[in-house]
Amino acid sequence: MAQQQQHVVRLEKRPVGKPVPGQDLVYQEAPMPSEDDLKDGEVLIKNVYLTLDPAMRGWMMDRKSYMPPVELGAIMRGSSVGQVMASCDSSLQEGDWVLCRIEVGWAEYGIAEASKVTKIDISDDIPASVHLGALGTTGLTAYFGLIEIGQPKEGDTIVVSAAAGATGSMVCQIAKHVFGCRVIGIAGGSEKCQWLIDDLGVDEAIDYKQDEGEDFARALRKACPDGVDIYFDNVGGWILNEVFKQINFKARIVVCGAISGYNNTTPAPGPSAYTQLIITSSRMEGFIVSNYAKRFKEAKEDLTGWLKEGKITYKEDVIHGLSKAPRAFLKLFGEDGGNRGRIIIDIHAEDQD
Amino acid sequence: MAQQQQHVVRLEKRPVGKPVPGQDLVYQEAPMPSEDDLKDGEVLIKNVYLTLDPAMRGWMMDRKSYMPPVELGAIMRGSSVGQVMASCDSSLQEGDWVLCRIEVGWAEYGIAEASKVTKIDISDDIPASVHLGALGTTGLTAYFGLIEIGQPKEGDTIVVSAAAGATGSMVCQIAKHVFGCRVIGIAGGSEKCQWLIDDLGVDEAIDYKQDEGEDFARALRKACPDGVDIYFDNVGGWILNEVFKQINFKARIVVCGAISGYNNTTPAPGPSAYTQLIITSSRMEGFIVSNYAKRFKEAKEDLTGWLKEGKITYKEDVIHGLSKAPRAFLKLFGEDGGNRGRIIIDIHAEDQD
Repeated sequence: MAQQQQHVVRLEKRPVGKPVPGQDLVYQEAPMPSEDDLKDGEVLIKNVYLTLDPAMRGWMMDRKSYMPPVELGAIMRGSSVGQVMASCDSSLQEGDWVLCRIEVGWAEYGIAEASKVTKIDISDDIPASVHLGALGTTGLTAYFGLIEIGQPKEGDTIVVSAAAGATGSMVCQIAKHVFGCRVIGIAGGSEKCQWLIDDLGVDEAIDYKQDEGEDFARALRKACPDGVDIYFDNVGGWILNEVFKQINFKARIVVCGAISGYNNTTPAPGPSAYTQLIITSSRMEGFIVSNYAKRFKEAKEDLTGWLKEGKITYKEDVIHGLSKAPRAFLKLFGEDGGNRGRIIIDIHAEDQD
Repeated sequence: MAQQQQHVVRLEKRPVGKPVPGQDLVYQEAPMPSEDDLKDGEVLIKNVYLTLDPAMRGWMMDRKSYMPPVELGAIMRGSSVGQVMASCDSSLQEGDWVLCRIEVGWAEYGIAEASKVTKIDISDDIPASVHLGALGTTGLTAYFGLIEIGQPKEGDTIVVSAAAGATGSMVCQIAKHVFGCRVIGIAGGSEKCQWLIDDLGVDEAIDYKQDEGEDFARALRKACPDGVDIYFDNVGGWILNEVFKQINFKARIVVCGAISGYNNTTPAPGPSAYTQLIITSSRMEGFIVSNYAKRFKEAKEDLTGWLKEGKITYKEDVIHGLSKAPRAFLKLFGEDGGNRGRIIIDIHAEDQD
């Protein structure tokens, strides 16, 4: 009997600039793993939802980082949720839902060690995909970045870039509705800005596409008459530099991402105004969410509570079918109008659009 | 009787680039204050030693900072030690030595409120000028920047830029001889590098004038085979960017100064490699020594002890006469071969060279 086939997306070339679908990230057939391949302690997983994240662009590069790069020819790495189809481990049963941080990746099916994946509870309140967003890396990144590094206090002014993005929108809501900060969201386009104000309840939204350079500085000054206490930065580039110029004494700059430069082939200019750190005795700090792995349980309890109380909401941009994942990845960098909420690939839903 | 005259240096113009002696900083006659001018609580001070510091360049600029700018036409601000000539306050007597943080400045004589100056003890071990260096802002800056922000632990690798400078040389010695770190000093020129190794006891010295760009990266990698845990930065610019590329997990970058850019008329490029903060979960923090004013006493006790035990030494570059101060200021930015240790102006010694 011929071996059954599944579909996967492989990293075939290291991208120069934006990853090219079909060249760098290639959707193709691959042997389908089966129950017979399982060793003790392993489970066979049907991947259901895969999420895409800007950090993946870093994993495609051949450089020393907090994780080794994805090897050429390998299935692209990514977080997913799926269901156990067969189990050789007593901790998991057929039908259980699991969160796979990197074990299955951009594939329809995969085999993982049971100890490496996390069993999750699914309910009407909390559907499976939420474990990839508000309760997943997104929510945890917002939670620890804001709380541990940003150290928000009631009445602080916080500025959030990529505020309409997956992480940014969580930060805005937690800062506003849990900590009582004055929240200024930066996003591209009036539609996103309106959403920040109407749906997330931020105090002010700045459209960086409309207000560049001096206009941006003025808009920021108007939105932050008392200066900036916390800047949660997802973008880097010129926006970071402009915010630097308006930070307060003992400000905290949370360096979560620098998406504006991720596809650059030469280094983007750094923030020349970083010397404001001296003048204001301020701090700028980066982090990786896995540093806080021991506290994920406590954080998820908080986040679940805030979801149920309606303090935080989330938006998903659902893409139907794994074949569309390479193209969808580019939405994170503004293509096809950009993403509207966290990108969730509904892996087996090829025929839905 | 004609009023007696003294000499002062005034800020007559805001410098563009390096301050020009005789144009921006002007040595001139001024009325000499006398005992008859004293109000209750004030003292008349004969300034003896004035020290020059790169931070003064910032005070000459018309911008919001941790201190108001020096006004045009005013006596240039600066730290000095001097002797009380007459007192209208019970806390100070004629002949007492006092530290004037900013009260007298670049002048031969001045009047200050007694409560604003600090009485100091002079001994054979600890001459007056040391209160402007190892026991003054220099020593305190090194102490709090290294200990509070750098958080050194035994065996940490620390890199110090402008290591042969006043603050840098203190940092090197405290890190090496008090905390037991592996210390790498960066300085310009082989003579300074040799001094770092022979006299301060650093583990490695890198001559940034000899090793630029790729060569510097290689030299740094060789000097720090286990990466960089702490970077005490006095210079900014391309050196900061190169060090960023070699920092370890949870590294601390102490932003003490950015002297490479102080005289720039356009902003120097920022460190494009700052995104290493994300990858390594590292922290970059600025500070002003006065944040720690409440702990100066405790710090001075530690520093005095280390001086007496020989754990730290200091070097002074003594300039004879206030008239030479405007020109001497440029040594801090590399002119006339640069300074060799803290610049001390021996104010009344005009005739000594």
